[in-house]
Amino acid sequence: MDIAIVTLDCFNELDSFIASGILGRMTPQGWKVRICSPFPFMETRSGARVERQEDLSYANSADAVLIGSGWRTRDWVAGDEIMAQFKLDPSRQLIGSQCSGALVLHKLGLLSDGVACTDPLTRPWLERSGIQVPDHAFRARGNIATSGGCLSSQYLAAWVLLRLAGEEKTREILSYVAPVGEENDFVERALAVIAEKEMAN
Amino acid sequence: MDIAIVTLDCFNELDSFIASGILGRMTPQGWKVRICSPFPFMETRSGARVERQEDLSYANSADAVLIGSGWRTRDWVAGDEIMAQFKLDPSRQLIGSQCSGALVLHKLGLLSDGVACTDPLTRPWLERSGIQVPDHAFRARGNIATSGGCLSSQYLAAWVLLRLAGEEKTREILSYVAPVGEENDFVERALAVIAEKEMAN
Repeated sequence: MDIAIVTLDCFNELDSFIASGILGRMTPQGWKVRICSPFPFMETRSGARVERQEDLSYANSADAVLIGSGWRTRDWVAGDEIMAQFKLDPSRQLIGSQCSGALVLHKLGLLSDGVACTDPLTRPWLERSGIQVPDHAFRARGNIATSGGCLSSQYLAAWVLLRLAGEEKTREILSYVAPVGEENDFVERALAVIAEKEMAN
Repeated sequence: MDIAIVTLDCFNELDSFIASGILGRMTPQGWKVRICSPFPFMETRSGARVERQEDLSYANSADAVLIGSGWRTRDWVAGDEIMAQFKLDPSRQLIGSQCSGALVLHKLGLLSDGVACTDPLTRPWLERSGIQVPDHAFRARGNIATSGGCLSSQYLAAWVLLRLAGEEKTREILSYVAPVGEENDFVERALAVIAEKEMAN
């Protein structure tokens, strides 16, 4: 499986690296998890510099695409230069967004039912565009998922695992990354959040 | 405050970037959170390349030092070249380790009471060295904390916040990074884990 973690400059490291760290546990099974960006290098809020592994063409052909957030997403969404590089297709890809990543999905016309989870800072920007924002962390409808609150990136990653690797592998990997002694609680909570918010569609 | 996130090559991105992402929320308050390494560049398991911001001299003078883990920590601990660069001092610094980062603390003689939290893969290596490993995620004794299971890096970061920024700010930042709708549960769980495992000392 090819997994694209789309990461724009001035990015939130919790979003991109929790997702890539969890999904990267599938590397021995042949999954290729890659930080994809239109920028050759991206910086975190604390100025840590990360090199992209692939440009956005990798995301366009990947099996799953997770779009992370950051504090300049609105700038990048406002211009055409970056947005024109996306050719995502929910009929053949799983597509998810984290926090302000929902602005990218909206710009690409991928929030077709007008509902998306996001963080409290992004929420008014989506609502002004007519998107309804629920008061919970995760939502999936078909092949599109949205999540809000940095650490909900664990749910987004778990959703991709459930869809592409099955429940047994998902449980194994979530148990591995959970705090020691909290494995069972963590796995059950994540699976319940995902199941509930898929059923609620 | 100067905060060093010590990151060795072949590192686990969940450890270093959850801690730096959470603590980086204090950047507006003047905290300098830096990825520190003896290596100019480090790679994750999925091959993402990160540039260090500071060498280990920053860690040696920082107010708090968190040592992340990775799958080659044993190699780095076995040699003197890297280990000799550490001049940490728990009398003037908060020092924490994540998973295999406990091997670094052990080598530096900082696990003086012979107990450390770590992950299941590192556990036998510590136990063979006579270190006792409890079945929970976090432990603090004085200025030294150890944690196990990738996502327990949130507890390590919260411990640093509690000690250096106070409870009100800690609650604010943990609420910000929590999954939307789970803020209260997440904050109370993190504070309870830290309080309990400090009291248990």
